[in-house]
Amino acid sequence: MKQIFLNAISLEKGLDIFFKYLESIDISHKSPEIIKTTDSLGRITASPIFAKYSSPFYHSAAMDGYAVRSFETFTASDRSPLLLKIGEQAVYVDTGDPMPDGFDAVIMIEDVNIIRGQNVDEYIEIYQPVTPYHHVRAIGEDIVSTELIIPENYRIRPIDIGAMLASGNFEIPVRKIPNIAVIPTGTELISIEDIRDRHPRPPEIIEYNSHVVAGLLREYGVNPIKWEIVRDDIDLIRDAIKGASKIADSVIIIAGSGRGSEDFTFDAISSLGEVIVHGIAIKPGKPIIIGFVNNKPIFGLPGYPVSTYITMQLFVKPMIEKMIGNTVQSGKTIKARLSRQASSSIGIDEFIRVKVGFIGDTPIATPIGRGAGLLMSIVRADGIIKIPNNVEALSAGTEVDVELIRDVDDIKNTIVCIGSHDSTLDVLANFIKKRYPQFSFSSAHVGSLGGIMAIKRGEAHIAGIHLLDEQTGEYNVPFIKRLLKEEQVILINLVHREQGLLVKKGNPKKIMGFEDLTRDDVVFINRQSGSGTRLLFDKCIRERGINPSMIKGYNKEEFTHMTIASAVKTGLADTGLAIYSAAVSLGLDFIPVAKERYDLIIPKRFIDDKRINIVLDIIRNDNEFREFVMSLGGYDTSDMGKVVFG
Amino acid sequence: MKQIFLNAISLEKGLDIFFKYLESIDISHKSPEIIKTTDSLGRITASPIFAKYSSPFYHSAAMDGYAVRSFETFTASDRSPLLLKIGEQAVYVDTGDPMPDGFDAVIMIEDVNIIRGQNVDEYIEIYQPVTPYHHVRAIGEDIVSTELIIPENYRIRPIDIGAMLASGNFEIPVRKIPNIAVIPTGTELISIEDIRDRHPRPPEIIEYNSHVVAGLLREYGVNPIKWEIVRDDIDLIRDAIKGASKIADSVIIIAGSGRGSEDFTFDAISSLGEVIVHGIAIKPGKPIIIGFVNNKPIFGLPGYPVSTYITMQLFVKPMIEKMIGNTVQSGKTIKARLSRQASSSIGIDEFIRVKVGFIGDTPIATPIGRGAGLLMSIVRADGIIKIPNNVEALSAGTEVDVELIRDVDDIKNTIVCIGSHDSTLDVLANFIKKRYPQFSFSSAHVGSLGGIMAIKRGEAHIAGIHLLDEQTGEYNVPFIKRLLKEEQVILINLVHREQGLLVKKGNPKKIMGFEDLTRDDVVFINRQSGSGTRLLFDKCIRERGINPSMIKGYNKEEFTHMTIASAVKTGLADTGLAIYSAAVSLGLDFIPVAKERYDLIIPKRFIDDKRINIVLDIIRNDNEFREFVMSLGGYDTSDMGKVVFG
Repeated sequence: MKQIFLNAISLEKGLDIFFKYLESIDISHKSPEIIKTTDSLGRITASPIFAKYSSPFYHSAAMDGYAVRSFETFTASDRSPLLLKIGEQAVYVDTGDPMPDGFDAVIMIEDVNIIRGQNVDEYIEIYQPVTPYHHVRAIGEDIVSTELIIPENYRIRPIDIGAMLASGNFEIPVRKIPNIAVIPTGTELISIEDIRDRHPRPPEIIEYNSHVVAGLLREYGVNPIKWEIVRDDIDLIRDAIKGASKIADSVIIIAGSGRGSEDFTFDAISSLGEVIVHGIAIKPGKPIIIGFVNNKPIFGLPGYPVSTYITMQLFVKPMIEKMIGNTVQSGKTIKARLSRQASSSIGIDEFIRVKVGFIGDTPIATPIGRGAGLLMSIVRADGIIKIPNNVEALSAGTEVDVELIRDVDDIKNTIVCIGSHDSTLDVLANFIKKRYPQFSFSSAHVGSLGGIMAIKRGEAHIAGIHLLDEQTGEYNVPFIKRLLKEEQVILINLVHREQGLLVKKGNPKKIMGFEDLTRDDVVFINRQSGSGTRLLFDKCIRERGINPSMIKGYNKEEFTHMTIASAVKTGLADTGLAIYSAAVSLGLDFIPVAKERYDLIIPKRFIDDKRINIVLDIIRNDNEFREFVMSLGGYDTSDMGKVVFG
Repeated sequence: MKQIFLNAISLEKGLDIFFKYLESIDISHKSPEIIKTTDSLGRITASPIFAKYSSPFYHSAAMDGYAVRSFETFTASDRSPLLLKIGEQAVYVDTGDPMPDGFDAVIMIEDVNIIRGQNVDEYIEIYQPVTPYHHVRAIGEDIVSTELIIPENYRIRPIDIGAMLASGNFEIPVRKIPNIAVIPTGTELISIEDIRDRHPRPPEIIEYNSHVVAGLLREYGVNPIKWEIVRDDIDLIRDAIKGASKIADSVIIIAGSGRGSEDFTFDAISSLGEVIVHGIAIKPGKPIIIGFVNNKPIFGLPGYPVSTYITMQLFVKPMIEKMIGNTVQSGKTIKARLSRQASSSIGIDEFIRVKVGFIGDTPIATPIGRGAGLLMSIVRADGIIKIPNNVEALSAGTEVDVELIRDVDDIKNTIVCIGSHDSTLDVLANFIKKRYPQFSFSSAHVGSLGGIMAIKRGEAHIAGIHLLDEQTGEYNVPFIKRLLKEEQVILINLVHREQGLLVKKGNPKKIMGFEDLTRDDVVFINRQSGSGTRLLFDKCIRERGINPSMIKGYNKEEFTHMTIASAVKTGLADTGLAIYSAAVSLGLDFIPVAKERYDLIIPKRFIDDKRINIVLDIIRNDNEFREFVMSLGGYDTSDMGKVVFG
């Protein structure tokens, strides 16, 4: 039986307890390691680096000419030129040559007259005195011996390597790289080595979380030590922690951190050392454990991928910063405006994934899927916002701090498309990245009406829609006229496409049309309200006098054509309405229902935006793109790129 | 004889020629390499990655309870409960368990009544029908088979590795990492391996530039192949290029790219392939060569460190982006306001190093040293601005784009101190980094009056000054009252310190005081106008009736105490006025002249700034800091941290 964490403490309190404990055991990697300066890129200095010698370390000529002793030139003038004996009082130097001993100035070759003796140049004649250091590049012009080159706790860049070498620092003390062990736990887990050549079978779960954690640790600048998968067995888990805490500076145990019957992390840590935190009022990530074994921090991180990810950022990352004496190079924060309300619960710090769009002048943050098990919700997110524990909801328009998980320049170069889903958009996304690697195309699937609303709220550059107006029989335009009065837009055709009922290969239930959906043995799966496909479906059954209550599964809604296809493919449903390419892609049969027009809405104010130009260039001029779309099946691209309104 | 590049082309033209040529030979690394997904962090995808299977790939229970067939539950109601036979019509499942075949819904354990038969649970009694998928975590909830996980030309993050593994992509095609050869040239160069145990000797020059270039290449994500130093000999250089171009994708030759008598890069490339660009109207970096040997790009980069650095950014970096099909993760650009005029020449694109300070609301960019040989000017810079070739000067207040060469968060956490130089500031910089690793202290040395001006212009958080008012005999306060009327500031004492004349160890010239500076055999070195030390010096000689024209070296100005000490140490001068710690640091003798008060100006509007709090905390409360300062010699810290005005 799962227990509730009745006494989960606040995030602030949890961090406070953790960091106080860290201070008490002095986690920082004080003992330095001496390495070659040429190998030090990205490392953190363990002490200040001072110049061992100056650069340049000798006086040199800054011009081609004659080196002289300045005090021997003071009497020279145009009226009484001065002769200096070559070899004794004047020595020829090229730019960069060391100054001869005792010589402190250079007279340019252009400013002397050379007096030849027998076969050799004997004297130079000069007409002006020179001051000390005249045309001399002095010792220490760049670096003065003993000066501070870079301080302690400083992350070394390529140019710093140059300055350290130039100043005679060929070996330097840097902070040791911490080792952190990563232990995946779970009886049902299977390692990727074991399923390289076959499909996994229920109840197997592919163990990927430790690879994500190892990657994050590498990004944080530490060395992950990956452990084999440990079954849900207290003795095995305890042995793993014992072994790992001997060789690593810290240990991360993934999953098993709750209080269920198969959660052993708490007991394992308690029996070896001390648990100081169990359960923090955050979402996701509540059942986190922090403890210590032999003065080494041991983490029990919850196993849902989003929970693991968030707790890594909240606890492991700042610990590493204390260890290495510097910040880790991730997690820039930007200010953005929330496009819609984000609600939460009082008493919980909630972390919400957002897409960030540089649409107009201010970046716009739009919350996306919240499930702690949804890995793709992080892959597709641009950043994370926090709803603090004393706030119930952040209203639309609130300025929020977004901790970015993607490069800000990538985000700036992203075309944001929100609206109905079509497979052509995935193809477009890939062609944009292929042709213009620095640009990205992000599409969120909220249905056609949701797309129009996104344009209205300034959340998107583009919306994909396919909305049939029942009264006029016209596609899309009537909706724009009705719903987008305040925004000047154009409408560009992407494709015409076929919608139909998807059924399993061979159509085992013999579904021939909408009438079959009322049969007792037929389970349907629906699209969400506001989607063009849902409007089409509702129109089709209304025309046939079928009441939604007669259709089993009418209330179960999915958000994309592919999830409809997947539900049919995997037996969750017998049929659903979707586009032809979705049927092709999962090997399903297809009963055609309608051909519809799928268009892109683009606000006129973006028409000169470089990002929009790229989209238009590809859909108008890229034959390879067009052929790829045709190859998906069910598409008519004859109007692709044509302006159909505006 | 050096020749002028009469026909240097514009930067725009140079880039255009270069990129056209790159396109003609198709530089991109199209042929992929298949690697383990677990090793793919930071690599660039060579094709789109689609889901091989769904995640989850089986339907599983989302709750603890009984799996049922939904169509068998339709008649259940409170009035007529329904019995389902355990084992046949209802199967117990824990959260996460795979759904038994043919079962499509879960009824929570709390919602059933269990009817016991003989010794076993025989039936469950239910009171409500359930719909299909009720409490079922469906196949594809996270990832649907065939869906696009990540596109082509995409840089892989830790979370992406998770999504690829979860969807069955255990090996993936990525772009090959380009190899680029780096060849340092120069007869006078000596490798650090050869001087590890001894001091270099004139005319040796330590070869550090290739290590900077290799570091930059690593940051750009390519693999540098370092070549041995090649002497200035056309045959040797040609052999090196020939060998390098066989094994590398591109070759960088450092130095020798000009048209002087010892510059052979041009001839070497020409004889093996083709030079397409020689000389571009940029500063620094003008004598750059771009050519091709066997369709591989060959660069001749100028050897001054700043020139090398700038030309790497301008030409090598974008070439690599074309090769790898993605941007390189460096060089964020921010907008900043120029604090003072930056002038240039028409017809030249000039790149100027700047310090960036987040002082008030807008970042402020302040140009720093321009010499192409000044490595430390890049180490100390935060970014680079461009003065375009059609602009003669950017006036103070202009908004400029700064290409950052330091992390923007580091810059935001930097305390900017501009003003007089004192060694205590170097110690302070190091203690700040030591105690608060995420913060930095940057000090620029422009003299005390320059510091006051910097505060006035909003360029600095702090200015260090030591200005004796001759009329009142008072330090600093009269100057603030006179010059900083519009800014409310406080003045905090840092140290009292001793100024004196520095002379070589043992005082070989027997300098006893200012009167000796007029001797014929004594060369003096001065500090710049506007520095407190210069004011002190001028006051001292005026009191003694000494005319500046009587002092040899009076017009040679240096900017810091350490460069004065260095000049005396290395024999460029016999004496100069500086603080005691500078004498100690280079082992010089010291003739005391005055004790003076060195204070910090801080505008009141910054007094609650976290960064200022850190500074005050250290100078007021850190005993280790105070002891370190005392150990430098010549300092009195009894008033350290006290408010002396405001």
